[in-house]
Amino acid sequence: MKVDKVIAAEEAVKYVKNGMTLGLGSGSTVNWFLRKLSVQVKEGLQIQGIPSSKKTERLAKELGIPLIDFSATTHIDLAIDGADEIDSSLNLIKGGGGSLVREKVVDACADELIIIADATKMVSQLGAFPLPIEVLPFGFEVTVENIKKLGGIPTLRRKDDQIFVSDNGNYIIDCSFGPIDDSVTLHEKLIQMVGVIDTGIFAGMADKVIVARNGGIELYSKT
Amino acid sequence: MKVDKVIAAEEAVKYVKNGMTLGLGSGSTVNWFLRKLSVQVKEGLQIQGIPSSKKTERLAKELGIPLIDFSATTHIDLAIDGADEIDSSLNLIKGGGGSLVREKVVDACADELIIIADATKMVSQLGAFPLPIEVLPFGFEVTVENIKKLGGIPTLRRKDDQIFVSDNGNYIIDCSFGPIDDSVTLHEKLIQMVGVIDTGIFAGMADKVIVARNGGIELYSKT
Repeated sequence: MKVDKVIAAEEAVKYVKNGMTLGLGSGSTVNWFLRKLSVQVKEGLQIQGIPSSKKTERLAKELGIPLIDFSATTHIDLAIDGADEIDSSLNLIKGGGGSLVREKVVDACADELIIIADATKMVSQLGAFPLPIEVLPFGFEVTVENIKKLGGIPTLRRKDDQIFVSDNGNYIIDCSFGPIDDSVTLHEKLIQMVGVIDTGIFAGMADKVIVARNGGIELYSKT
Repeated sequence: MKVDKVIAAEEAVKYVKNGMTLGLGSGSTVNWFLRKLSVQVKEGLQIQGIPSSKKTERLAKELGIPLIDFSATTHIDLAIDGADEIDSSLNLIKGGGGSLVREKVVDACADELIIIADATKMVSQLGAFPLPIEVLPFGFEVTVENIKKLGGIPTLRRKDDQIFVSDNGNYIIDCSFGPIDDSVTLHEKLIQMVGVIDTGIFAGMADKVIVARNGGIELYSKT
């Protein structure tokens, strides 16, 4: 039996049309999308992708998916991306993989953004997943203190005993705020802080969410 | 006769007290401040500085000014910095030297911020100096298009025929908006854009401005 991530990825491929410029998100579900997409490409589908992380770029190249970057176009027809949490208003928390800012750049300039996920990502309220916040390395100690003042419990992300560094050369603070009542306001407060580059809150950005649950598909659309 | 920048710098040194942690800004006027400060340090003044740019760090080291970084403290008693434009409400445009974000990190966490300048920097309205905006290299082409939609004329900063790269590894867009009626609102619109890291608008941050004009000193304080 296929796992739900694969089922969601297969469903998303149906939205890809010939000639499209695609934003390619990041994460394990998107990796399945890339594998399924590459099959279509080998069969003649003509698309070009803009990857949102170095990991996605590497995998897409391995799979033979044609890539361009923003020097070639600033227009994206459709972006396909994953999420760490999705609420019933289709607001998202992203950034578990550390690519939140590049993903947001890509997703924000797409005509349409489709999020793919298994049902474990659907939540009644955002915030069980600690919010990733990308910050400048310079003065991050000050930025962490400022984030604390908003009531969060911040942790500097590490990997293999080193400070984790994003594709943009920045640090990630994973911050537990508990249940987030108003993700838009929290994002705005954070983004205005000196040293904060962006947050993993993607509010009002997703046009569709494809959720696979127990082998079936649920489709949610922005109202 | 001393030039006004030197006179403003000398005046600022009077505000430095023994034992202070100092934020050290950037630019030609601040460089004069560092030279004057180093004389006091050689005579026994005990201070420690946190530099806001690699250039300032280099000069301070050459001059024998003791330096620390934010891993040692997140508290700054006094920051001394320059500006490219200063209006009558003491709002600033900074970033001509390309260090706006690090300067803002340092200046924002200081108990007191004193700006030093010659009289040419005082303006009735901000905006004759193009606003520096630090942006992520990834997708900067999209960010430039978004900035244009706010009505500005953006130019990617170059140096020696190469794209200028900030100390944080980012690009600078110099954007002419014409006279800026509401610098706070313009800053907020820009900072909320995906890909924008920070802007050169320093609104409500300066506590004092020391201006040297024709050899005399003018002192402006935040009301």
